[in-house]
Amino acid sequence: MSITRRDFLNQVAIAGGYAATFSAMQALGMIPRAEASTLPSMPADFGKGRKVVIAGGGIAGLTAAYELRKAGFEPVVLEAAKRPGGRNWTARKGTTVEFIDGTKQECSWDEGHYFNMGPARLPSIHKHVLGYCSELGVELEVEINTSRSALMQSAAMNGGKPVEQRRVMHDTRGHLAELLAKAIDQHTLDDLMTPEELKKLRYLVKGFGDLDADMKYKGTERGGYAVARGAGPVQQKFHTPIPLSELLEADMTKGEFYEEHIDWQATMFQPVGGMDRIPYAFAASLGDIVRYESPVSEIRNTARGVEVTCTQSGKPVKLHADFCICTMPAPILKSVKGLSRQTIAAATAIKANALYKVAWEAPRFWEKENNIYGGISFLKEMVDLVWYPSAKLFSDKGVIVAGFNLEREDDGSLTPFGKLDMSGKLAESRRSVEILHPGHGGDLTKPIYINWAQIPYQLGCVGQTDLPDAQAAYAQLNEPDGRVWFAADWLSRLTGWQEGAILSAHRAIAGIAGHVKGTAAAA
Amino acid sequence: MSITRRDFLNQVAIAGGYAATFSAMQALGMIPRAEASTLPSMPADFGKGRKVVIAGGGIAGLTAAYELRKAGFEPVVLEAAKRPGGRNWTARKGTTVEFIDGTKQECSWDEGHYFNMGPARLPSIHKHVLGYCSELGVELEVEINTSRSALMQSAAMNGGKPVEQRRVMHDTRGHLAELLAKAIDQHTLDDLMTPEELKKLRYLVKGFGDLDADMKYKGTERGGYAVARGAGPVQQKFHTPIPLSELLEADMTKGEFYEEHIDWQATMFQPVGGMDRIPYAFAASLGDIVRYESPVSEIRNTARGVEVTCTQSGKPVKLHADFCICTMPAPILKSVKGLSRQTIAAATAIKANALYKVAWEAPRFWEKENNIYGGISFLKEMVDLVWYPSAKLFSDKGVIVAGFNLEREDDGSLTPFGKLDMSGKLAESRRSVEILHPGHGGDLTKPIYINWAQIPYQLGCVGQTDLPDAQAAYAQLNEPDGRVWFAADWLSRLTGWQEGAILSAHRAIAGIAGHVKGTAAAA
Repeated sequence: MSITRRDFLNQVAIAGGYAATFSAMQALGMIPRAEASTLPSMPADFGKGRKVVIAGGGIAGLTAAYELRKAGFEPVVLEAAKRPGGRNWTARKGTTVEFIDGTKQECSWDEGHYFNMGPARLPSIHKHVLGYCSELGVELEVEINTSRSALMQSAAMNGGKPVEQRRVMHDTRGHLAELLAKAIDQHTLDDLMTPEELKKLRYLVKGFGDLDADMKYKGTERGGYAVARGAGPVQQKFHTPIPLSELLEADMTKGEFYEEHIDWQATMFQPVGGMDRIPYAFAASLGDIVRYESPVSEIRNTARGVEVTCTQSGKPVKLHADFCICTMPAPILKSVKGLSRQTIAAATAIKANALYKVAWEAPRFWEKENNIYGGISFLKEMVDLVWYPSAKLFSDKGVIVAGFNLEREDDGSLTPFGKLDMSGKLAESRRSVEILHPGHGGDLTKPIYINWAQIPYQLGCVGQTDLPDAQAAYAQLNEPDGRVWFAADWLSRLTGWQEGAILSAHRAIAGIAGHVKGTAAAA
Repeated sequence: MSITRRDFLNQVAIAGGYAATFSAMQALGMIPRAEASTLPSMPADFGKGRKVVIAGGGIAGLTAAYELRKAGFEPVVLEAAKRPGGRNWTARKGTTVEFIDGTKQECSWDEGHYFNMGPARLPSIHKHVLGYCSELGVELEVEINTSRSALMQSAAMNGGKPVEQRRVMHDTRGHLAELLAKAIDQHTLDDLMTPEELKKLRYLVKGFGDLDADMKYKGTERGGYAVARGAGPVQQKFHTPIPLSELLEADMTKGEFYEEHIDWQATMFQPVGGMDRIPYAFAASLGDIVRYESPVSEIRNTARGVEVTCTQSGKPVKLHADFCICTMPAPILKSVKGLSRQTIAAATAIKANALYKVAWEAPRFWEKENNIYGGISFLKEMVDLVWYPSAKLFSDKGVIVAGFNLEREDDGSLTPFGKLDMSGKLAESRRSVEILHPGHGGDLTKPIYINWAQIPYQLGCVGQTDLPDAQAAYAQLNEPDGRVWFAADWLSRLTGWQEGAILSAHRAIAGIAGHVKGTAAAA
């Protein structure tokens, strides 16, 4: 970066904060547009005198208020709950988790322990959410999404005993490489590649599987040692490979491919102290712009703007504004009065999934006995993963997530886990930990179970706008309904991610800015 | 863990510290013996009245002194340098790096910046070094060894432009999977597997490469997006795969397989503030047991023990003791007087490699422009890797390591890098950063270059006892020379790792303990 460019960017940063710097850097071609924001550049008095009511104080709503205020608008956020964040919700000592069916759980863990019941990871490619963390002073630490010491378990593999992930990963790779080497040496690929390329392919495949000189897979140091390394004459030994037939029967592919999903790749982050440090930082900045316990029931276009009705202290309160950004979840939005038939039909067409998580407080047996520091173990049971904390490593106790999956299939039917009552669910969660860590199921205490379909003002988790039959509804809600714009993670191509919520909020602001500019031009 | 067992271990921990707890847990079968310590359990008065001189205050020597003191011995560490740690040496503001050829560098980086010139990573499977960190209160943080946003570059690939690692990794996997799918569908593997297994293999291969329904590789979200995801109607697009022929020609295998070496797998750690926090914590605990600027020149067995001669303030000083643990590097050891011909021949036969590293202080362009937080980029130049800091992420400046490799081949000849003079080396280091991060080569300031073959009292880095022709020498030095035991990372199967140094120290102590028990039995 030349001094001139850097000076320019520093000036931009001082004037416009992170978003402006980011836009300027993109404009200079300095940043590959990994995720595309459409946040317009607006002078500080751009929105002067214009009110915007934002329905919903999750990440989309908070981002919208934060950026609108910067541009001189007067935003108000109406949030149904007592806290900011929406699905960005962290349980810790004192948190009450109350379901719509009346189930109530109180969290009484040790000070400092927490459970991110909604989003729990920040991919480092999600630049905008990282940018807001930087701008708002939210301290981040590494979220360890992969540990090669984490475990995999299936009745079909290794006599049912859990195996370190490194063995499953590398035995699989070794077998695949050996098969491919056979194909090369049997001239199966001769018509596809030149002899020179085949020679290089053979070299690649040998390294890929750590094959021996005869292109056979006999185990690898990558899988760890059956006889450990040490000092002196000791001679270490690799594990005997798990037979390919067992690996195929066990099918640990969920775990094997997990870390390579684009949004789950290294490096990942988490806010120190819990994911809700993000919405609380937004809320602290916004002050009384955010009004809690104010559920919105009606959003109506009027001749000169919008009229939004919420309930405060049991009474309806009407707010008038120039624009509205509605960030309410689809299962709630579909019952809001005053919006167009098309909007309501689209909201109704979008199904939110019913994600659950179960977390426990426990002594860190996974660190002490298995060298597992963060990462995820996978098994072939109803509760099919156990997620270890990246926070407060090496301390005595921690919060372990045993179970993170769906209670309902896409077709609306209950999953086997979803069919259980709460005590059955907790028992399944504990059972999976016991299978992976024999003798430790009983160490789990003080469970907190969240099912997002049971949470008031949410009634679900991620809007399934990635499903093919939701595309028309997705398109509809990405258009304004009069002066009402919609924003949410599920109105982006990053469903379920805070980055998607932010980009969607930026897009709603772009829509409002376009309207303001159009009005200004017409005036 | 039952309460009884836990209570027992707590008692052990109170009585004997980490090592005793660890041994007890192993005895109870609670820990898989990933790395095998032979440290004996010794009562606190076991070594009472017995002196041990330890030559060398690196990790092996410090560990030996620390454990011997616990068991009632009277250890003295004679360290040649002014500081503890040996090759565990961290440069920061005020550090002087002086070579035997007279080259002198002064580090003047900002406060808090550092460069681990020797070991820089702690694998989470290296339990003993983690155990000492815990026992000594050395704070650890995650060392990010892999970032999928790090870069790979070769003239043969993508027109010579750097590519995110995620693309190289997953395009390679995709192509390999497609080739294997072809082999399956052409019935090449029919004689090796049952039809049922082949069906499962096909499913595995499809997922492994993220192939389409026709088992073709057309790109994958795992490789990132050419058209980014965003809010609203935007439709993201995968990158067009890099052709297999380019990937084969480029040969990025060093980078592709790097993270899967057993000791470089996730999760990894580093001490907060620099690797030398470990030897300084040992040294703080040992106090005046460690004597600096006391290079050992002679170690001689006597009728009743050992006589060790070192130089202090220019004068020879003789120490008498019951035992000696010699941890001196092979290139130094071979010139020590008084040891047996076999010992000297073995020390002479062990060649230490000539590892170098180059580090620079720079603004964090890799984070701001490339979303690279930790991890390593690879390229096909003389300086073939660039290693990004895991410390102080998101801050303004950081220390980047551009170059970590050998100055000499195993046969003693200089590598192309080794043939350059210092300014040529620094230019190569800068050039590689410029290739990966165009426009930023000039941002690198205040280089620190270390070549371990040039460091006094080291004259090399890792003793190459993993070479086949070093096995006899390895065996020789793993036997005592009279009452002199040898300990070093290179006298273990974990050459180059602090864990190896620790295990080797434990083994030397076991040898001494055996001698003491033998004497006691005879008395």
